[in-house]
Amino acid sequence: MMTELKRLVVGRPLANDQLVHERLPKRLALAVFSSDALSSTAYATEAILIVLSAAGAAALGLATPIALGIAVLLMTVAFSYSQTIKAYPQGGGTYIVARENLGTIPSLTAASALLIDYILTVAVSMSAGVAAITSAWPVLDPYRVELAVGLIGLVSLANLRGMKESGAMFAIPTYTFIASMFLLIGAGLVNVVTGNVTPAPPPQTPHLPAEAGALSLFLILRAFAAGCTALTGIEAIADGVPAFRKPESHNAAITLAIMAVLLVTMFLGITVLANAYHIIPDGSHEPETANSQLARAIFGAGSPFYFLLQIATMAILVLASNTAFADFPRLAYFLARDRYFPRQFTQRGDRLVFSNGIVALGLIASILVVAFHAREQALLPLYAVGVFISFTISQVGMVQHWRRAQTPGWRRSALINGFGATMTGVVMVVLAVTKFREGAWAVLLLIPMVVMALLSIHNHYVAVAEQLSLEGAPRPAPVRRHTALVLVSGVHRGVIPALQYALSIAPDNVTAVYVDLDAENTEKIRRKWEEWGCGIPLVILPSPYRSLMQPLLQYIDEVEARYDDDVLTIILPEFVPSKWWQYMLHNQTGLQLKAALFFSRGKVVTSVPYHLEH
Amino acid sequence: MMTELKRLVVGRPLANDQLVHERLPKRLALAVFSSDALSSTAYATEAILIVLSAAGAAALGLATPIALGIAVLLMTVAFSYSQTIKAYPQGGGTYIVARENLGTIPSLTAASALLIDYILTVAVSMSAGVAAITSAWPVLDPYRVELAVGLIGLVSLANLRGMKESGAMFAIPTYTFIASMFLLIGAGLVNVVTGNVTPAPPPQTPHLPAEAGALSLFLILRAFAAGCTALTGIEAIADGVPAFRKPESHNAAITLAIMAVLLVTMFLGITVLANAYHIIPDGSHEPETANSQLARAIFGAGSPFYFLLQIATMAILVLASNTAFADFPRLAYFLARDRYFPRQFTQRGDRLVFSNGIVALGLIASILVVAFHAREQALLPLYAVGVFISFTISQVGMVQHWRRAQTPGWRRSALINGFGATMTGVVMVVLAVTKFREGAWAVLLLIPMVVMALLSIHNHYVAVAEQLSLEGAPRPAPVRRHTALVLVSGVHRGVIPALQYALSIAPDNVTAVYVDLDAENTEKIRRKWEEWGCGIPLVILPSPYRSLMQPLLQYIDEVEARYDDDVLTIILPEFVPSKWWQYMLHNQTGLQLKAALFFSRGKVVTSVPYHLEH
Repeated sequence: MMTELKRLVVGRPLANDQLVHERLPKRLALAVFSSDALSSTAYATEAILIVLSAAGAAALGLATPIALGIAVLLMTVAFSYSQTIKAYPQGGGTYIVARENLGTIPSLTAASALLIDYILTVAVSMSAGVAAITSAWPVLDPYRVELAVGLIGLVSLANLRGMKESGAMFAIPTYTFIASMFLLIGAGLVNVVTGNVTPAPPPQTPHLPAEAGALSLFLILRAFAAGCTALTGIEAIADGVPAFRKPESHNAAITLAIMAVLLVTMFLGITVLANAYHIIPDGSHEPETANSQLARAIFGAGSPFYFLLQIATMAILVLASNTAFADFPRLAYFLARDRYFPRQFTQRGDRLVFSNGIVALGLIASILVVAFHAREQALLPLYAVGVFISFTISQVGMVQHWRRAQTPGWRRSALINGFGATMTGVVMVVLAVTKFREGAWAVLLLIPMVVMALLSIHNHYVAVAEQLSLEGAPRPAPVRRHTALVLVSGVHRGVIPALQYALSIAPDNVTAVYVDLDAENTEKIRRKWEEWGCGIPLVILPSPYRSLMQPLLQYIDEVEARYDDDVLTIILPEFVPSKWWQYMLHNQTGLQLKAALFFSRGKVVTSVPYHLEH
Repeated sequence: MMTELKRLVVGRPLANDQLVHERLPKRLALAVFSSDALSSTAYATEAILIVLSAAGAAALGLATPIALGIAVLLMTVAFSYSQTIKAYPQGGGTYIVARENLGTIPSLTAASALLIDYILTVAVSMSAGVAAITSAWPVLDPYRVELAVGLIGLVSLANLRGMKESGAMFAIPTYTFIASMFLLIGAGLVNVVTGNVTPAPPPQTPHLPAEAGALSLFLILRAFAAGCTALTGIEAIADGVPAFRKPESHNAAITLAIMAVLLVTMFLGITVLANAYHIIPDGSHEPETANSQLARAIFGAGSPFYFLLQIATMAILVLASNTAFADFPRLAYFLARDRYFPRQFTQRGDRLVFSNGIVALGLIASILVVAFHAREQALLPLYAVGVFISFTISQVGMVQHWRRAQTPGWRRSALINGFGATMTGVVMVVLAVTKFREGAWAVLLLIPMVVMALLSIHNHYVAVAEQLSLEGAPRPAPVRRHTALVLVSGVHRGVIPALQYALSIAPDNVTAVYVDLDAENTEKIRRKWEEWGCGIPLVILPSPYRSLMQPLLQYIDEVEARYDDDVLTIILPEFVPSKWWQYMLHNQTGLQLKAALFFSRGKVVTSVPYHLEH
């Protein structure tokens, strides 16, 4: 029954040889790899405005110069990653680059930061996607958590089915989003140039303090840090070089450049217009996004272009979270393959995808969405720190790579990566300091904890491998003598096959054990045993506290001590109901005993079943 | 570790001989058995007012005559139950009475209705208890669900610890509640007599329709039905006769009479005063209870008496739900003993209480509280139907009892019970019809479903007992020949003991089986096997869909068909990590295989463990 349900949900299993890879032309690769980066324009400007609003409405105008600074940073990082593409045509994920060039601890630090980031990508993107929709249709706002969790469920499912990553599926939403953003920016700029700007009406509950605070340098740095979420996802193309058509590195680098230009244009355009239209963040309980306010001001509230933009925004944000659903399981696989992560993450499921990674990501992201009530602006302070940690590690790794490789032009490349590393490193510190109290502390605490967990997993696997190694193992010795204990819960047909089995493996050395839970029953058992006990001695254990386990485990210990050099087999007679639900109607004593014996002593445990008919 | 945690939470285990019963004097028995009934005055009047408000504020005055009708019904039912007390000095629970006098289906119907009612008692009482508190401290209203679920958790825990039901613990809240209710009613009546009544200010959002509906007979019947929740819990004394001091029946009957008089006085008093003070139900999102409005009008908002009443109301409602925590596990035990309910419910836990029943009740009631946002007025329509079904069955059973017993005066007793049964039967129909759309349909649907479930559980247990019976069983035949299959996942030290074990039980008939999931690994295995395989043939099974289970189960089937008259033992080499968390780092293949083999075929399954050091 469970099997049929699974088939219905995830589809029929795929054979190993159905694992193929599609090569993408640039225009499709741009769509596939850029959704994460481009979609951050849906919330980055608003994040700047929210921080600045602490210093009053007048301070909001600083968003434009801050965004210009972020744009410079963005181009630097993109240029730096184009060097990675050149060096790693097989895909330069941060973990790979760090492991090859910097060693274990930096690579695990990057991996921890990335694992946390992928989870946050899903939580932030889905929450922001829902916000785009509830801004257009506020009636949906009370259901935002349900909608976001539902979307995570759908994307998880699509990934579990091993959705063919057809470029076309990505191209339509991505290009629709780009087109409608450019339409918005174009229309807005025409208005600005023609002096035709009607400022947006302020929201009913503007996100402004009762008394405006001072405009400090710290506040400006915080606003800068908030806007740095615009850079999230920019590394995706460097990770995915092998998916490009030949020459891969060349095509990937061109695509990265195009994406960076698009991203800078959209981010600057939105920010400049938000200032021109005097957009004030909505501080109500059911906030409208800043982008939605701007689009309503430019297109008009009922305009089809407005609704198109909101829907396209949601669609690209869903795609962005889908990127994490590809990246998280892949990183988990690399870590598991290197024995830093539970080995279950190396298994491909029925549909050839890393099912465990997909399920884990979906579950944790859903918990975050529920905990943060699907408010992406509340999640953002956690988000960017990890991204900049992995940016910095990746680029420091590249500097090391060039110093080792010394290929022609390595000095120039090392210089570019070094400059990128310095920039992102400084920003990382700014982020950590300015966002510390808002939540970055949690990430900064979590990353070393995850690193330690990865290391102890690794130590365990290494220890197991050593202990199981046959190198220098003694030649196996045959079993000399068997001792068997049959644990009986009554005298009935289900017990007889177990007694016979016990006699067949240890003819002269079988004992049956019964725990006295009820004097009346025990007397009945004793009488029946004389007739049906096959001549095996029956030991009756007292149990004043009605516990089954404790007297049994204690007795087994005693027997084990007595026959020290033998194999002790514990035999459990089990009757098996014909239907699964009937199993719940019986005491799961057998299961409990098996668990207790497995962990606490590890004698040989044998189940002898007796099958019931109906 | 789990064990230590359990000890901390529920306390150390108690021995069987610590199970004793306390006999209660009348004044304590009244406190123990009447909390459920008396506490219903916390919500019954408001339930009437809410229904009547549909016909406008003027219709609210009808509450007084309706309450008078309910009072008559209440006295009739109490009188009827005093006959039960006479006939069943050993305790006349409805299930017992129905089973002895009416047979299986009526008794199971009553049992189903009672199980549902006990769950609703907990959900309603805890929600109403929280409402008493949030009425006094509205700032707590947003946390009402958390508070109610938290209280259920605490009461569950207290019951799991096997709280000594000391009468004193019940007496203080119950008598405080009775005293403060009489103080309220007394003060209110003095005001009425002296013409000193200041009507309560209407709530900010009165529970009144925009346009008042017509005052139909149906509406009056609905209001009557709503008020019948005042009768819930009245049967408790009849269930608990053996807890009274001798002469039990006599003392119990007197206590029942006192309780009925107290209940009628309090219910009528509150209702009359609610009309005199023009109490209008609060229709806001964070409603104040009608009782709280009345108490504020009479005592004054800041009066210590007001706060005392609210706290005492909450306390007695918590006690009322505690009653269900005694009754539900006991009924579950009776049903399980008669093989209508999973047998796990017959077990006494460490602390001599029926732990499974307590946990089940706490969980289901918590789910209801969450689903209904801890609003007792929303739960009430579900509540009373089941109560009246069990009232009616119980009293019909008593009529049958008297007709069979023909003890002196049986005609009179039968007449009283017959009259009671007719009254409650009519009210049951009224309740079912008038509350049908508000939720009674769910209970009316659920009861037959539960009855069917109980019957099919019974059929299963009977069938199992028949199949396991040794009556006429053939004498056991010894095992003739063993076949052993060792399932290997690699060649390492963990496998060797399993191979040796297999050779010792089936020296000439062992095969090792390996599933080929990865060609490279398989080749390694094959090479190592030559050195370490102890001469046992190794079968390698292909698996194009990367499934471990399917090829193995299929192969086991084939082997089984080949050696039809033998015992087939499946041997699983398992390495056991030294710490429990390490277990999660390994594939739970052994567990999956055991589950699959247990249910689908039930060959003898043997685990041979290999213990790891660290």
